[in-house]
Amino acid sequence: MFTGHNKKLAEDLLESIQFFNKKGWSPATSTNYSVRSENKNEYIISRSGVDKSRFSLEDLILINTRGEVQPPFAGPGIKSSAETEIHTALYEQFPEVNCVLHTHSVLGTVLSLTHLQEKQIVFEGYEILKGLEGNSTHELRETLPIVPNSQTMSEILGKMEGRFSNDVHGFLIAGHGLYTWGKDISTAKRHIETYEFLFECYHMMRRF
Amino acid sequence: MFTGHNKKLAEDLLESIQFFNKKGWSPATSTNYSVRSENKNEYIISRSGVDKSRFSLEDLILINTRGEVQPPFAGPGIKSSAETEIHTALYEQFPEVNCVLHTHSVLGTVLSLTHLQEKQIVFEGYEILKGLEGNSTHELRETLPIVPNSQTMSEILGKMEGRFSNDVHGFLIAGHGLYTWGKDISTAKRHIETYEFLFECYHMMRRF
Amino acid sequence: MFTGHNKKLAEDLLESIQFFNKKGWSPATSTNYSVRSENKNEYIISRSGVDKSRFSLEDLILINTRGEVQPPFAGPGIKSSAETEIHTALYEQFPEVNCVLHTHSVLGTVLSLTHLQEKQIVFEGYEILKGLEGNSTHELRETLPIVPNSQTMSEILGKMEGRFSNDVHGFLIAGHGLYTWGKDISTAKRHIETYEFLFECYHMMRRF
Amino acid sequence: MFTGHNKKLAEDLLESIQFFNKKGWSPATSTNYSVRSENKNEYIISRSGVDKSRFSLEDLILINTRGEVQPPFAGPGIKSSAETEIHTALYEQFPEVNCVLHTHSVLGTVLSLTHLQEKQIVFEGYEILKGLEGNSTHELRETLPIVPNSQTMSEILGKMEGRFSNDVHGFLIAGHGLYTWGKDISTAKRHIETYEFLFECYHMMRRF
Repeated sequence: MFTGHNKKLAEDLLESIQFFNKKGWSPATSTNYSVRSENKNEYIISRSGVDKSRFSLEDLILINTRGEVQPPFAGPGIKSSAETEIHTALYEQFPEVNCVLHTHSVLGTVLSLTHLQEKQIVFEGYEILKGLEGNSTHELRETLPIVPNSQTMSEILGKMEGRFSNDVHGFLIAGHGLYTWGKDISTAKRHIETYEFLFECYHMMRRF
Repeated sequence: MFTGHNKKLAEDLLESIQFFNKKGWSPATSTNYSVRSENKNEYIISRSGVDKSRFSLEDLILINTRGEVQPPFAGPGIKSSAETEIHTALYEQFPEVNCVLHTHSVLGTVLSLTHLQEKQIVFEGYEILKGLEGNSTHELRETLPIVPNSQTMSEILGKMEGRFSNDVHGFLIAGHGLYTWGKDISTAKRHIETYEFLFECYHMMRRF
Repeated sequence: MFTGHNKKLAEDLLESIQFFNKKGWSPATSTNYSVRSENKNEYIISRSGVDKSRFSLEDLILINTRGEVQPPFAGPGIKSSAETEIHTALYEQFPEVNCVLHTHSVLGTVLSLTHLQEKQIVFEGYEILKGLEGNSTHELRETLPIVPNSQTMSEILGKMEGRFSNDVHGFLIAGHGLYTWGKDISTAKRHIETYEFLFECYHMMRRF
Repeated sequence: MFTGHNKKLAEDLLESIQFFNKKGWSPATSTNYSVRSENKNEYIISRSGVDKSRFSLEDLILINTRGEVQPPFAGPGIKSSAETEIHTALYEQFPEVNCVLHTHSVLGTVLSLTHLQEKQIVFEGYEILKGLEGNSTHELRETLPIVPNSQTMSEILGKMEGRFSNDVHGFLIAGHGLYTWGKDISTAKRHIETYEFLFECYHMMRRF
């Protein structure tokens, strides 16, 4: 179990994980979540294969930058998600990022497929855009990149190469869902809520 | 912390804030809420930037008619929303108004954009219209004004000039959401629920 | 407060009222509910004007067949809904009916308006039809009458004249919602759930 | 009441039943659920006619392979669902199956009717497909058979003859809902969640 500041981080991360599940954004054993630990080169991350409606503190484990489970969490069958590489790559590339969240909602899935050819989805004119870090007005164009799905994480990351910037707050994997991040858990959680709300508005607007 | 009658008002306001969040009408840190305090020239209002899914009594503060935080609530980083001016203007203009609520739902956002050119949305023939104060029948035309969004509150208020009347129970800010009010918290809460229900009916009717 | 068997009836009715509210079928102060009391000529019924998200045992009162509040419940401002006449008329006409429930959902409202000219909506082929008392197969045509809305209950009841039968389990008031009933609270509750589910299926089928 | 390992199985099954009800996948008294008991030739199964929003441990009973209620559960009015034969047939045919779950959602109902002529619905390219046992990639075609509804279980089972295989994880009964299964409760629950999520994605994709 985590202690000290890591315990606080694990509890806060758990609260967000449970919030997303109640919203229906993490069906079955899908999705994964992490936060940079007190020791900057280790990450607290969700275990693989856990039913997110039953997720508890015991399902958070510690990994290093290579995704290896760290003591005392290591043990038979204890591993983080196959998508761990996306988390570690984001932490390595962006030292200011301290939390990476991945949800798997119906609309995230659907929009990522309907807009895959355009390789992105653009949001404009919504007040909620101010929910994304650094945005101070609704009068902007926010671009969310979309990449094809793959069971090989380096392929997914390869498709994002050159597409990260200060103005990019997340990306969609086609048929799979949303990755977003932030300087802390509450910022990353706000990004998830903001994107899911944007997905709903965007989808409804299209059908008018 | 609030005491006496103000404590009761704060607790009632909190209950409505939590109700709206469970409904999905206050994503992330969006929305703001207030109630006129026991001292008629002060208002209890939601703090700025708080995640509405974690909102608690501690996140309600006292402001004066100029929106300045009052002791003992003042402190570093303690402020009310950028939209406070809308609340104070409504209280000043309408002495009978004792509660102002602002929600930010998907349908409020979408309908405010699809009907922005018409500058209003009209509801007719719904029994639920009786949920708006003073309406005693469903056989009426209820007009909800829509104004363009702006990061400058005086611009938003300027667009509402001459559009308030006894028959107007709220307004929409385009891409942003709903403001409504009432003689007390329960009336204003009833207005929010009534409008959100009307939005859903209206939207579904359009698509038949 | 109720005692003995009436207390049990009141508690069961309250559980259904709270269930419907969580489902979103009773916005604001809409809807009303009753159960025939131990004394067959009195009914336990919901008070008028109560926010259904805050409804409690204290909001259930006793009325007689003329809708008059009975002691010890009588008092200033204590009355049942304006729609009480619908409840008492149903109990009078159908001695086997012991519970009358009225919900006000978005789809109940919308379908009652889109099908008002046809004066009814017909459901066929759904397994859930077996949820309506007396149906033992999905292979039947179930007719739900629709009547125009009115603020005068006798007009609403007049439009239902000659349309009641053993095969009719409820009716819709246009723009207003659903009335259904049963031999006990659990049967009437099952009818509400069955109709609301049918509304959702029917609406979705239409749009394929 | 169950004891020992059967008590654990009953509690786990109950948790899933309550989860499905909160999702809206078991309206009124619809749906049924079972798990193979410690004694491999007996099954713990939901009682017939129980409101799933009030379902409790007391509503789980023990049956044998012929669907007969076993002591000490037998008693007047105590029986399992009319659909018990589907459960027992699945357990008999597939020794590795230890849990059978049946939900009745709006989308399961609607898609089973709109695709009845095609006798199946095919899902492709969704990451969530990995939620179905044995699938290790999203790059596959998953076929969900659809059979006509009947009040005679042997007819339903007859229509599935020759359509079971290792690649088939469930089937839809037209206008009625989903049956799925698994080696344990958590696998079968994951299948329900996966299918319901697929239904929502599929439906939304069709309407783009």
